[in-house]
Amino acid sequence: MTNRAWHLMSRPAGMPTMDDFALRDAPLPELQDGWVRVENKWLSVDPYMRGRMNDVKSYVPPFALGEPMQGGAVGKVVESRSPHFKEGETVFHMQGWREQAAGPAEQFNKVPPLPVEDHQWLGNLGLTGATAYFGLFRAAQAKEGDIVFVSAAAGAVGSAVVQIAKAKGMTVIGSAGGADKCAWVRELGADAALDYKSGPIVKLLTEAAQALGSGGIDVYFDNVGGDHLDAAFATARQNARFAICGMIEDYNTGSSHAFRYIMRIIAARIMLKGFIYTDYLPEMAEFYREMGGWIASGQVTSRETVRDGIEAAPQAFLDLFTGGNTGKMLVRL
Amino acid sequence: MTNRAWHLMSRPAGMPTMDDFALRDAPLPELQDGWVRVENKWLSVDPYMRGRMNDVKSYVPPFALGEPMQGGAVGKVVESRSPHFKEGETVFHMQGWREQAAGPAEQFNKVPPLPVEDHQWLGNLGLTGATAYFGLFRAAQAKEGDIVFVSAAAGAVGSAVVQIAKAKGMTVIGSAGGADKCAWVRELGADAALDYKSGPIVKLLTEAAQALGSGGIDVYFDNVGGDHLDAAFATARQNARFAICGMIEDYNTGSSHAFRYIMRIIAARIMLKGFIYTDYLPEMAEFYREMGGWIASGQVTSRETVRDGIEAAPQAFLDLFTGGNTGKMLVRL
Repeated sequence: MTNRAWHLMSRPAGMPTMDDFALRDAPLPELQDGWVRVENKWLSVDPYMRGRMNDVKSYVPPFALGEPMQGGAVGKVVESRSPHFKEGETVFHMQGWREQAAGPAEQFNKVPPLPVEDHQWLGNLGLTGATAYFGLFRAAQAKEGDIVFVSAAAGAVGSAVVQIAKAKGMTVIGSAGGADKCAWVRELGADAALDYKSGPIVKLLTEAAQALGSGGIDVYFDNVGGDHLDAAFATARQNARFAICGMIEDYNTGSSHAFRYIMRIIAARIMLKGFIYTDYLPEMAEFYREMGGWIASGQVTSRETVRDGIEAAPQAFLDLFTGGNTGKMLVRL
Repeated sequence: MTNRAWHLMSRPAGMPTMDDFALRDAPLPELQDGWVRVENKWLSVDPYMRGRMNDVKSYVPPFALGEPMQGGAVGKVVESRSPHFKEGETVFHMQGWREQAAGPAEQFNKVPPLPVEDHQWLGNLGLTGATAYFGLFRAAQAKEGDIVFVSAAAGAVGSAVVQIAKAKGMTVIGSAGGADKCAWVRELGADAALDYKSGPIVKLLTEAAQALGSGGIDVYFDNVGGDHLDAAFATARQNARFAICGMIEDYNTGSSHAFRYIMRIIAARIMLKGFIYTDYLPEMAEFYREMGGWIASGQVTSRETVRDGIEAAPQAFLDLFTGGNTGKMLVRL
């Protein structure tokens, strides 16, 4: 039984390359009392991991150079020296980017008893869905009747935002890159899908809001920053609320966007709020109940872009920044 | 008795010039039933008026070309056809930029019974003070113990923010242009005053926060936008709150600033909120009670830059954008 793990070998200045990663054998750890060992089945790759490759304290600590990387993962317990876990149980945890995980029992979470596939604990019932849920309902205080704009709407978080906003009676405008992704965003229930590659997003969004009769937006769920955020400033209605979740446009370039319409914060009394889903951990029970219900009823579905084998992890991660995924990007072991 | 009024003659593309204004005689209006006529004693010139010179719907409608300009004013009733006003009463209203004002009684407000000089109704007990008060306590939800950064701290609104923040037990860092203004900001009670002309504001603010032992700021009261706002992003502590009141740096240039540190909105969970004081009109009684008390006790003082005569109004206004004022800029008739 091997225990290969992806190690961070260098800190990229811009877009990472394969040379920044190395797949190395790690020794199988000796289990201490209270520890468990888990064979990983699914690994998550997410845009926020780019920030952890920099040597900068952000909302999560940086990856250590020369050490295995980390990230969301789902696996099965194969060895337990803890009374809390039995062999064969399914758990989710943060020791991804590797074949096997080991550590104290408190680092592992049993999946709640819901009838869903294992990988959902990395998707709509995991970081992805919780980010969509708490960003929309807490950070942006979205409510029935709101006009919601969401960027990267064919991505993992964005596609969840589209569906839960529709489930709660909102009008939804999503943006995505290309006709295929836009078609899927409409399938998810969006009232309009904007192909940001087809023209300036501020123009597309203005026209879409006019076509919907609203003339503007009440909520913006920001996954990308840059021109999308500026377009949201331009079209915000009175008391609009922006959930600032990610700025993927800037993760690699480090460039600083100029905002033509930022002064509309005052005119439209806009509120912006940065968040990550762990801010709302005490409310996870409500999230599981609502999201579990929507998945069971088919109101929230998912699409995955799946790559196979531990070898595939870095390229899967890199492809997130060039639009290589529709829905959640996963690595299956 | 003359009734000269400043008319808007052209819409400036960048910084306005005297050519954009013309002082013209206006006829004395015939009073209709329910109207009053007021002789103006004090006129207010404020940065927000620059926005009204553009033909763009903002939070206040644009000035009409060829028509008298508008703005805060205090005067005395000289003729009344309304049962609600008597000759000799002091009122504040929005028909500034002119010698005489006339209109339906509901356009005029009697000054509350507080023992203050008339011009205070344009300053700490008027738009200026209410903007400081509601921006700090409502938009930014500032509370005792917070580290507050305020830009344009030697300006009308900024100097009020410094003092009411100190009155409520906060630590205050103010920025202003030049040693004299900074000395006055310290006299007002600020724990630190930063001369933004002496170096990059992000560096000055970082050092000031470190010297105060906080390492960062909890509240930013933004009067200027641009580099100051970016410095606030850079130094924000967890759950920092920004009241976005004005972006005077951009009013004339129309340029769009690039923000190097905007991604910290997520890491520090920053909340930004745009506002104008009229959003909080239902709470004016509380404002008068608190601010009236602070003025009576000497905890809040004011400094005025006074220009004399109706002829002086446009230049007084233009000087706001080159730092020509300390405290509130007023025109005395």
